[in-house]
Amino acid sequence: MNAESDNEKVLLAHGSGGRLMHELIESFLGELRNPLLERMDDSAVFDSPGHRLAFTTDSYTVSPLFFPGGDIGRLAVCGTVNDLAMSGARPLYLSLAFIIEEGFALADLKKVLRSIKEAAEEAGVKVITGDTKVVNRGKADGLFINTSGIGIVPEGVEVSASRAAPGDMVIVSGNLGEHGIAVLSQREGLRFEIPVASDTAPLNGLVGEMLGASPNIHCLRDPTRGGLAATLNEFARSSRVGIRIEEEKIPVDGAVLAACEMLGLDPLYIANEGKLVAIVAPQDAAIVLAAMKRHRYGRNAAIIGEVVAARSGEVMLKTRFGSSRIIDMPAGELLPRIC
Amino acid sequence: MNAESDNEKVLLAHGSGGRLMHELIESFLGELRNPLLERMDDSAVFDSPGHRLAFTTDSYTVSPLFFPGGDIGRLAVCGTVNDLAMSGARPLYLSLAFIIEEGFALADLKKVLRSIKEAAEEAGVKVITGDTKVVNRGKADGLFINTSGIGIVPEGVEVSASRAAPGDMVIVSGNLGEHGIAVLSQREGLRFEIPVASDTAPLNGLVGEMLGASPNIHCLRDPTRGGLAATLNEFARSSRVGIRIEEEKIPVDGAVLAACEMLGLDPLYIANEGKLVAIVAPQDAAIVLAAMKRHRYGRNAAIIGEVVAARSGEVMLKTRFGSSRIIDMPAGELLPRIC
Repeated sequence: MNAESDNEKVLLAHGSGGRLMHELIESFLGELRNPLLERMDDSAVFDSPGHRLAFTTDSYTVSPLFFPGGDIGRLAVCGTVNDLAMSGARPLYLSLAFIIEEGFALADLKKVLRSIKEAAEEAGVKVITGDTKVVNRGKADGLFINTSGIGIVPEGVEVSASRAAPGDMVIVSGNLGEHGIAVLSQREGLRFEIPVASDTAPLNGLVGEMLGASPNIHCLRDPTRGGLAATLNEFARSSRVGIRIEEEKIPVDGAVLAACEMLGLDPLYIANEGKLVAIVAPQDAAIVLAAMKRHRYGRNAAIIGEVVAARSGEVMLKTRFGSSRIIDMPAGELLPRIC
Repeated sequence: MNAESDNEKVLLAHGSGGRLMHELIESFLGELRNPLLERMDDSAVFDSPGHRLAFTTDSYTVSPLFFPGGDIGRLAVCGTVNDLAMSGARPLYLSLAFIIEEGFALADLKKVLRSIKEAAEEAGVKVITGDTKVVNRGKADGLFINTSGIGIVPEGVEVSASRAAPGDMVIVSGNLGEHGIAVLSQREGLRFEIPVASDTAPLNGLVGEMLGASPNIHCLRDPTRGGLAATLNEFARSSRVGIRIEEEKIPVDGAVLAACEMLGLDPLYIANEGKLVAIVAPQDAAIVLAAMKRHRYGRNAAIIGEVVAARSGEVMLKTRFGSSRIIDMPAGELLPRIC
């Protein structure tokens, strides 16, 4: 994929195991070069990095593929890195599998590969194995990407959605709703007075700082599909506790609030791709919050509520006006193809 | 997904992070239940099983989803298990990621899940982490599956496409071309006198027997896309050797030969999903072959040729008539969507 090929399209033959596929893979290698990937065997073989490992997978079907603040490539790296980080793991290795629609522009594929390379470098992970399939025109939507990831869980780290305990504090790492609004506005051709960019970012560095500050981080999750509402409901159910949050403490940028009001959306249900929710033992909440605020991806971190014993499995919001309402698990369609 | 839901379809809301998605995931858990999967955290965390690990990924886009001898579910397990086995690894854990087209029948999803469960049991692997995305009608082709896999490489095992040496023998594990012909005939509605069923099968047991018989297995690969021709060309290039094979020694079933003749296809270029090609040191070729023939997936194994120093990077076929021709890397389209 050099300059001459910028008008070229992906052909079915690029996925057929033959010469064109090998040329395409060579160009991937050019972007992502490392010794494990270059061996080109059926699997990558590596020395086990530790005693406890984490393994996760995600397919990315975001539409459109390019949006303010990111693209499907950056998303595919950050999303899987973040799933590993949310288990307390240090992400190390990624797999990368493309499903490409016949006719997709090679120049766009090159752009996505560059984003993958940059995001992997930022996160400190290596792509060590991959796969490419090409399907007929009309049988996919341009490009789908799957990344799976392997990380190492350091000794003593025990993070799980089931570990929230009454008295624990609820912390979010920053302003909510930016990814969902950015993708939606790009897709629908909406123009807001202040444009909203996706927050897509790798959070493993931030999690490293938090775990360095305290071993008493009980739950971590990135509120992607279903937003903060889904994540807190998952914590409440898995841990069999209630969770109380306060609307006025939840950080949301003015531009996102304005867009949500215009579209009739609730920022608590909008997807994020560079934010996390942490449940932390009360005695360590302040030092964890301080560590987060020192990190570039945690500057707007805030304590937004607490875990309670009452109303097990439920999430309650105290509104700006002092009333209370239940924040339910999202039921319906929300925003499809956001990740 | 109980009996009442057999007429139900997958909705966009099944992929939106909300209540319907959690119900769908619960039904997956019902089929694939194991303690690691049930934790439902962002990653599965497990104890490292050994010093050297293998990691691989594959997306499956086969069309049609159901074909004689298998379906996309069995294929998605066996394909990734085999990629691990071809690195000499014992496959242990799989991830499982679905991209589902809105409107896909839940009953078909249930069938695919059952196939996944059965194939995973046969191969002795566990699905420990997963993901589900739903895309709008017309933006995918029913169902795509990605599986990634982790295995352990036993001490002393050193298998790579770059290890073929002059004098080594070339062994195939059985009759070629069955998967490609089965899928093609189902897709095109072709009826042959003797129907051809896909060979889709997990080969880790067979590889275990082979490695038990000899440590001198230099290369292993399953000849999927591009068939035997692509695999041998990859070996010849990676190892910088020539490979000579003899047409009359290559096992091909009569029904496949007949179908290939009718369709103008060459069985050497047709995909297999339950066969392997091994390059073995000459002194151990006979005992490896004997071990293969004792295994259910190696009964028709045969030595088909040898590795030579001359004509580095090339594969030469001695035909039934005594003439020689070069077997090139497949260049063109072959049979798309075969895996």
